[in-house]
Amino acid sequence: MASKHLINSPSTLVIESLEALCLLNSELRLDRDSRVLFRPFSSGSSQKVALICGGGSGHEPAHAAFVGKGLLTAAVSGSVFASPSGKQVRRAVELVHPRNSNFGSAEGAGTLIIVKNYTGDVLNFGLAKEALASFPVYTNAVRFLTVADDVSVPRSRITLVGRRGLAGTVLLYKITGELAARGANLNEVENVGLYVAGNLATIGVATGHSHVPGTERGQDVLGEDEIEVGMGIHNEPGVLRLRGSNGSPPPISEIMPRLITLLTASQEEDPERGWVSFLPSANVVLMVNNLGGLSPLELSAVSLEASKSISEKGLNIRRVLCGTYMTSLNMPGFSLTLLKLPNSEQEVGQGPSQDQILSLLDTSAEAPGWGWVSGRPPVALSNQIVSSSSSGSTSTSSKPPLPDDKYAEEVVKAITRACDALIHAEPELTRMDTVAGDGDCGLTLKAGAQGVLSLLQSNEITGHDLPAAFIAIAGVAEDKMGGTSGGLYSIFFSALAQGIRSSSTTEVDWPSALHHALTKLYTYTRARPPSRTLVDPLDAFVTSLPTEETEFQNSFQKAQEAARATRGMQAKAGRAVYGGGEEGGGEMDPGAWGVAVLLNAIRDKGRQ
Amino acid sequence: MASKHLINSPSTLVIESLEALCLLNSELRLDRDSRVLFRPFSSGSSQKVALICGGGSGHEPAHAAFVGKGLLTAAVSGSVFASPSGKQVRRAVELVHPRNSNFGSAEGAGTLIIVKNYTGDVLNFGLAKEALASFPVYTNAVRFLTVADDVSVPRSRITLVGRRGLAGTVLLYKITGELAARGANLNEVENVGLYVAGNLATIGVATGHSHVPGTERGQDVLGEDEIEVGMGIHNEPGVLRLRGSNGSPPPISEIMPRLITLLTASQEEDPERGWVSFLPSANVVLMVNNLGGLSPLELSAVSLEASKSISEKGLNIRRVLCGTYMTSLNMPGFSLTLLKLPNSEQEVGQGPSQDQILSLLDTSAEAPGWGWVSGRPPVALSNQIVSSSSSGSTSTSSKPPLPDDKYAEEVVKAITRACDALIHAEPELTRMDTVAGDGDCGLTLKAGAQGVLSLLQSNEITGHDLPAAFIAIAGVAEDKMGGTSGGLYSIFFSALAQGIRSSSTTEVDWPSALHHALTKLYTYTRARPPSRTLVDPLDAFVTSLPTEETEFQNSFQKAQEAARATRGMQAKAGRAVYGGGEEGGGEMDPGAWGVAVLLNAIRDKGRQ
Repeated sequence: MASKHLINSPSTLVIESLEALCLLNSELRLDRDSRVLFRPFSSGSSQKVALICGGGSGHEPAHAAFVGKGLLTAAVSGSVFASPSGKQVRRAVELVHPRNSNFGSAEGAGTLIIVKNYTGDVLNFGLAKEALASFPVYTNAVRFLTVADDVSVPRSRITLVGRRGLAGTVLLYKITGELAARGANLNEVENVGLYVAGNLATIGVATGHSHVPGTERGQDVLGEDEIEVGMGIHNEPGVLRLRGSNGSPPPISEIMPRLITLLTASQEEDPERGWVSFLPSANVVLMVNNLGGLSPLELSAVSLEASKSISEKGLNIRRVLCGTYMTSLNMPGFSLTLLKLPNSEQEVGQGPSQDQILSLLDTSAEAPGWGWVSGRPPVALSNQIVSSSSSGSTSTSSKPPLPDDKYAEEVVKAITRACDALIHAEPELTRMDTVAGDGDCGLTLKAGAQGVLSLLQSNEITGHDLPAAFIAIAGVAEDKMGGTSGGLYSIFFSALAQGIRSSSTTEVDWPSALHHALTKLYTYTRARPPSRTLVDPLDAFVTSLPTEETEFQNSFQKAQEAARATRGMQAKAGRAVYGGGEEGGGEMDPGAWGVAVLLNAIRDKGRQ
Repeated sequence: MASKHLINSPSTLVIESLEALCLLNSELRLDRDSRVLFRPFSSGSSQKVALICGGGSGHEPAHAAFVGKGLLTAAVSGSVFASPSGKQVRRAVELVHPRNSNFGSAEGAGTLIIVKNYTGDVLNFGLAKEALASFPVYTNAVRFLTVADDVSVPRSRITLVGRRGLAGTVLLYKITGELAARGANLNEVENVGLYVAGNLATIGVATGHSHVPGTERGQDVLGEDEIEVGMGIHNEPGVLRLRGSNGSPPPISEIMPRLITLLTASQEEDPERGWVSFLPSANVVLMVNNLGGLSPLELSAVSLEASKSISEKGLNIRRVLCGTYMTSLNMPGFSLTLLKLPNSEQEVGQGPSQDQILSLLDTSAEAPGWGWVSGRPPVALSNQIVSSSSSGSTSTSSKPPLPDDKYAEEVVKAITRACDALIHAEPELTRMDTVAGDGDCGLTLKAGAQGVLSLLQSNEITGHDLPAAFIAIAGVAEDKMGGTSGGLYSIFFSALAQGIRSSSTTEVDWPSALHHALTKLYTYTRARPPSRTLVDPLDAFVTSLPTEETEFQNSFQKAQEAARATRGMQAKAGRAVYGGGEEGGGEMDPGAWGVAVLLNAIRDKGRQ
């Protein structure tokens, strides 16, 4: 359990978070003493119903970040995981439904208070409602709606307290909020709210608890291979622990079917649950909610698994929402909510229709807690997967110089010698890289060399079409080497091919082609000698090439010297730089020495 | 460092997360092999420029969750914290900018590749660009834009590698994405992109690192009182550690000015930084980004502190964005990004104008990673704070029964006796509650009793206006007791006042008023006897009241018995229920016994 926080003080945290929401929406107002964030009452507004919600803090974006046009009118915030007082709630009602305004007296206008079913919240919000009830302007114009969407705690254990309110509450906010924004009256908003509240099922899962700022440091109660199912949003323990094998939690594909069964089983199948009747082929909305501390990468993959399991149950997913809606501070876990949509038969009966609910959910809202939703049902994944095709040959129509057979043979021999030398040097390069790097330099170069040799053997690289040969070598560097050095080699050889192709003579103008390659390479790396990288010998070789003669011995020598000079030099490129330099333990840089080995092998022909 | 994950396997995590994004937007397509998520090329589209971005995974919602109308055309995903290959990038270009389409050949059309400045990304994206460059259709129609917004790593340490790309990149996505959606040509999009890239500054802070699924469990390198400034998004260590006092990290108000100085100092003030010139009164956009594992509550408060510090520097904040844009898995920290907006003079010169940039940022986009932004500048907080006013008296105009002086005196005496008895019983109640609860029951009731006595002494409670007296007592229960029991008492007394007021006779009809109060209370709690709560004796008392006589001795007796019967009873209400019942160690329930004590004290009069 991470117990470190980036805060000023536990006592100012909540009010600071509310003031910050004002920065995001200048239209909002804040009553600091009562911690009520609200959209001010506007006598010209067509909205007939104000929605007030709230509860303890620590569940952000719920509730205050949902205040805005098309969502909540006001949110009342308690301290972390503690209900606000009745007085705070009363103040919220008076702010959005002023006693002396014509709001409550207008036809069908009023305030709907939405409360998550926790003893403290129900009492304090109720207390406010009862205290206001003695004023005629409020008597019938302030209503109360309780949300209790949890399915984890068994029916037999909660006969008196009822189910808890969890993230499904946010779907109710959105749907009733948009309905109110469209000008519906209090009865209409309450009725749709009752439909939604009656058709929600939510279950949470986490790998651990969260820590409340200002409290003692907690202990992790779960083992490294355990997760808890039925986690509440106030650190209440779950109802079920699952343990994985191999010291890790069970794979999500193993967890998910159990969750979906808990969510959707009928009361006949599970006497402790079955709160909502999810008949096969029922239409549902799926909300995958981050409890605060799960990486968004994991959350996304969880939503795929959830969607698969739900579809396997025969349910028909009409919308998927995936994001952070109601948290338990930064609890590393997620909750799943299913909202059962009305049957199509209901469209002509009582209650809201499926299209109405979806339209209310889909319409965008002006609140920082509410993100973009596509407003379209998911389609079968196979319709969205495109088949990969090879990216085709990269050769072009311009005519390269055509070497004669002898020249072609020499080129092949030189390439072969270079590859053999790199394979032979692998243990030495590995040793160098183990001292100063991650130890893979030798193997990376060996893999590239073996890849090139294999293309030579299959005649996919020949000495007759040099641009094609170097494009193929660039491909091997990319595929077989990878990483930074593979990329650098690949760009260099790609550019070398371009340089050779542009040679105006029938003979290859090596100095010019190599200069072109180095220049291109330098647009992708800032490494310049002395850098303790492969650039040092490469640059030394290329920049010392004579332009008028074909005797390159001096350049080979310069490359050797540059590689040897990396011994003890401080790194100036590569990711290690960000955290502080490393001396490399007095070894040469293995990448630089690899270039020297390669060039040395090519030169050996000149010495024969 | 939390090393537990909710995944199937590290090797399938990334592709699963991409498939899941398809569920959120049926318009998107996925090339699984290349991990390219994209909006398919539409020949009828007015969009002239495709935007391709990407990089390692683990930074969600960046990059794939930003693919959508008004944002990215395609995102290429590598493994966690590893660059995608050049081949993957090449495929991405071919998917959104088909070689045989008229896309690249249309006037000013083309593809802009946006890359965060990391060696691997620059190389592999560059490699793709170079490999494609040999096709005329791509030669000038594929451009490259590198983002390097980090200010943490000192200039002297990154001469070769340059600054890193961080969350500011997402602002660039949004601004250029909307510009492309409006039909701008490649030069225009590239120019605006260059402006944004050149005016971004970002710095990260965290209390710890994140853990990469599939790797060894890590060790926390930071102490409980330490944070690191300049955290990268790949677990690179920061450049500066700050240590707080009292065993906790420094308060955010102490951290923030240092961060803002690092972000905004000129090169004269800080030779190692000053990448962007933030002159006083410069207009800026502030983005507060969750690195993945900070609670949204803390993130919100951080944004307030950031905004204060920035304003104190004399900068003029035109927009605040606060959310999760670019993460390092679930790293517990945040980053701050400042985008300097063009001067008003620039509006008539070259480059984009301030209004243009803001309009491109404000327009909504259809991507799940992008949330709602208000499109308005923050105003001075004082304009959004409303002053709290008392919620006024709750008495109404309807006429209550008026007791005579003797009756009034008796009522005051009874209330006084009840209060004295509760204060006297505090040690006993505390002892009971320490066994089975959190030990505050005795003190809570004592505080309430003292509050009532104090109102009696100041004559704010008299026996002459009974509804007003019980409304005042309800207020004390709410204010001085709080919690669940305070709420229950408060509702009961509020409703009792309503019940008394509706008495049709001049005498108070106690049984009827008490019935009304209990009925109302039951709409807010599901606790029913036997529940091992204060409801047990209250219900026993009220439901046994005779309606025709004024002799209540039997009912007092029933209440006593009900309270004593809670001894050894299993809890059926209250939050303890969720985690499993508790036996209470053979004690009575202290809340129930408190009611018995209170009623007993009232009865004592009858015995006198």
